Amino acid sequence: MNIKNLSINFIGFSKSNYDNAIFIVDATVFDLYAARLQGCKCVIVQGKERSKSLATVKKIIAELITFKADRKSTLVAVGGGVVTDITGYVASVYMRGITFGFVPTTLLAMVDAAIGGKNGVNFGLHKNFIGTINQPSFINIDMSFLKTLPLQEWKNGFAEIIKHACIKDEKLYNLLKKHDLTYFTNNPQVLLKIIKKNINIKLGVVKKDVLENGERKHLNFGHTLGHAIETVHKISHGKAVAIGMCFAAELSAQIFQFDSPLEVKELIHNYELPTRFNSLNKEKVLNILMMDKKKENELIHFVLLTNIGKAETQLLDKKQIEIALHKF
Amino acid sequence: MNIKNLSINFIGFSKSNYDNAIFIVDATVFDLYAARLQGCKCVIVQGKERSKSLATVKKIIAELITFKADRKSTLVAVGGGVVTDITGYVASVYMRGITFGFVPTTLLAMVDAAIGGKNGVNFGLHKNFIGTINQPSFINIDMSFLKTLPLQEWKNGFAEIIKHACIKDEKLYNLLKKHDLTYFTNNPQVLLKIIKKNINIKLGVVKKDVLENGERKHLNFGHTLGHAIETVHKISHGKAVAIGMCFAAELSAQIFQFDSPLEVKELIHNYELPTRFNSLNKEKVLNILMMDKKKENELIHFVLLTNIGKAETQLLDKKQIEIALHKF
Repeated sequence: MNIKNLSINFIGFSKSNYDNAIFIVDATVFDLYAARLQGCKCVIVQGKERSKSLATVKKIIAELITFKADRKSTLVAVGGGVVTDITGYVASVYMRGITFGFVPTTLLAMVDAAIGGKNGVNFGLHKNFIGTINQPSFINIDMSFLKTLPLQEWKNGFAEIIKHACIKDEKLYNLLKKHDLTYFTNNPQVLLKIIKKNINIKLGVVKKDVLENGERKHLNFGHTLGHAIETVHKISHGKAVAIGMCFAAELSAQIFQFDSPLEVKELIHNYELPTRFNSLNKEKVLNILMMDKKKENELIHFVLLTNIGKAETQLLDKKQIEIALHKF
Repeated sequence: MNIKNLSINFIGFSKSNYDNAIFIVDATVFDLYAARLQGCKCVIVQGKERSKSLATVKKIIAELITFKADRKSTLVAVGGGVVTDITGYVASVYMRGITFGFVPTTLLAMVDAAIGGKNGVNFGLHKNFIGTINQPSFINIDMSFLKTLPLQEWKNGFAEIIKHACIKDEKLYNLLKKHDLTYFTNNPQVLLKIIKKNINIKLGVVKKDVLENGERKHLNFGHTLGHAIETVHKISHGKAVAIGMCFAAELSAQIFQFDSPLEVKELIHNYELPTRFNSLNKEKVLNILMMDKKKENELIHFVLLTNIGKAETQLLDKKQIEIALHKF
C-alpha cells in the first residue's frame, strides 16, 4: 500500500466497520474491551517486547490458518506498538501480503509506532531486525482507549512527542515546556490537537523518505542508544528513549555546539521520564549498539541536534561513542 | 526494487563481479564449484523442497549476523528455485530489506523460478505460504552450470517451458513438438534462444501484473493441482506440474471445449514427464488443494486453456474439482 493512500480517521471503534477482518489484539486490551470484540475472529498477543519474536509470528500464522484467513482477509491490529509492529509484519508475508490496518490503543502507537509502515520483530538481541517497510491501509484512532492507559504508557507516549518536538518543531517544544503530563491527560481537546500535530510531523518526514535514506533517520533521535539500553536493561521503550535523547543532547553539545542540552533534560524530567540510568552496563550497551541496523561498516549513524527543532545525522565510530558514554 | 530496473545478463560467473556479497549457495552446487567461490562469504543451503521453511530462514539470518551482513550487503543466491525463493525472502526481511540478486544454476530457475519476484517458504503443508513479492536487482545467467545438471532437473525445466508455450506462445509450442529433450541438451545455441524466449514470456506477463491480480494467474497453469500432488506425494516440482497440466487440459476440454488435451499430454510425455500418477491419494490431494493461496472463500482459481497459447482463469468449487479428479 502506498503511503499516499493511507487513510487516518478519528472514529470510535466498532467491529461493524471491518469486513473480513481478523483482529490481532493486545491481551490487556482484550480483557478490558472484550465486549467491543464479541463474536469477532481474534488472535490474542501479549503486548510485551518479548512477544516481538519469530515464534510469535509463527503462532499467529497458525491461528490465521485456523480462521481460514485468505487473500481477501484484512488484519486489524488493536493494541500498542508491539501489536502493530507484529501485525504489519505478519500481514506483509502471509500469502505474500494481505491488507492490514491499525487501531492504536496507546498514546505512543497513536503518535508514532502505528505511523510510517516500519514493522517487524526482534531477532535475539537484535531489535526490529526482521521486518519490512509496508504501509497499512488505514489507521483508526479512538481516543476513548486512552481512558484505561496506565501512567507509564502516557510517559512512553510523551517521550516520542518530545522527540518530534526536538528534531522538527520548536513551537511544539515550547508548548510542551509550558505544560506537563497532568495538563495533557486532563485536557482531551488539547491532547487531540497534540496527537494530530505529531501524526503530521511523522507523516511529513516519512512521506519524503519512506525507505529511510535521509531525513527519516532523524526520527531515530534518542533511539540508537535507547534501543541498546532497552535490550540490555529491559526497561520501557519511553524510559530508554528518554535516556537516549539526553545522551544525544550531550553529544550534540560536544559535536555541534548545541546550546540547550540541559533544557532538553529538564523537559524530559518534567514529563516524568528519566534523564540517566544509574547502573548502566556500559560495556554491554556498547556491544549491542554496535549491532544496530543503522551501522555502516563500523560506523554508527547518530542523530544529533544543532538547534531545538533541527536534527543532523552524524557518523560516529565506536571509540567516540565509548568516550561519550563514559562521560555520560 | 522495481521490476523495470531489473538487469538480466548472460555472463560467466565470477566472484569478482560482486561487491559486499554474501552468497547463499545450494549445497550440491557448492560441492561442484567450490573453486569459483573460494574466499567468499557463503551460506550453504540444501536445495530441497523441505529446506523451504521458517527454520531455514532463521538459520540463514543467524549466519548473516555472524558475517556482519548490514544494509550495504548484497545477498546473491547461487542455485535453483529453492535457493532463489529463500534468498529473496531473507533479503526482503533482513534489516527490513537489503539488496539481492540471483545466479540461477538450474534450467527451471533460469526460465521461471528466478523471474518475477515471488519469494518465500512453506508453512507446514501450505506451499509458498510465507513470503513477499519483491524483485531482485539482477539475474546473472551462466549457462555453464547446466553442464552438471541432472536429467531430472532438465525435465523439471521443460515442464515450465511447456507451461509457457501452452498458456502464451503457440510458436514455442510447435517448436517443442518438433524436437525433444535430447535435441535441446545437445544444442546449446538453440537452448540459449529458448531460455531467452521463456524469460521474455514470463517477464512480459509479470510486468503487466506484478501483484497477480489478473493475467499473472495464468502462470499457475498446472500448478494448482501440481502443488497439492507435490506436497502429498513428495515428487519433483516438474513431475507434479506435468500431471497438473494434464489434469487442467482435461478440465479445459470439459469446460471450454479445448480441443487438444491429448496433444498436450503427448508433448509432456515426449519430454519424459509423467501425464498421470497411478496411486494418487485423491482425498489428501483435494484437502491440500482447498488450502491453496489462490482460494477465494471456497472457490479455487483454476487456470484452463481455451486454445494452445491462450489461457483463462475459472473459479471452480470443491465438488467440480472432486468430480474431475475422480474421472482423471
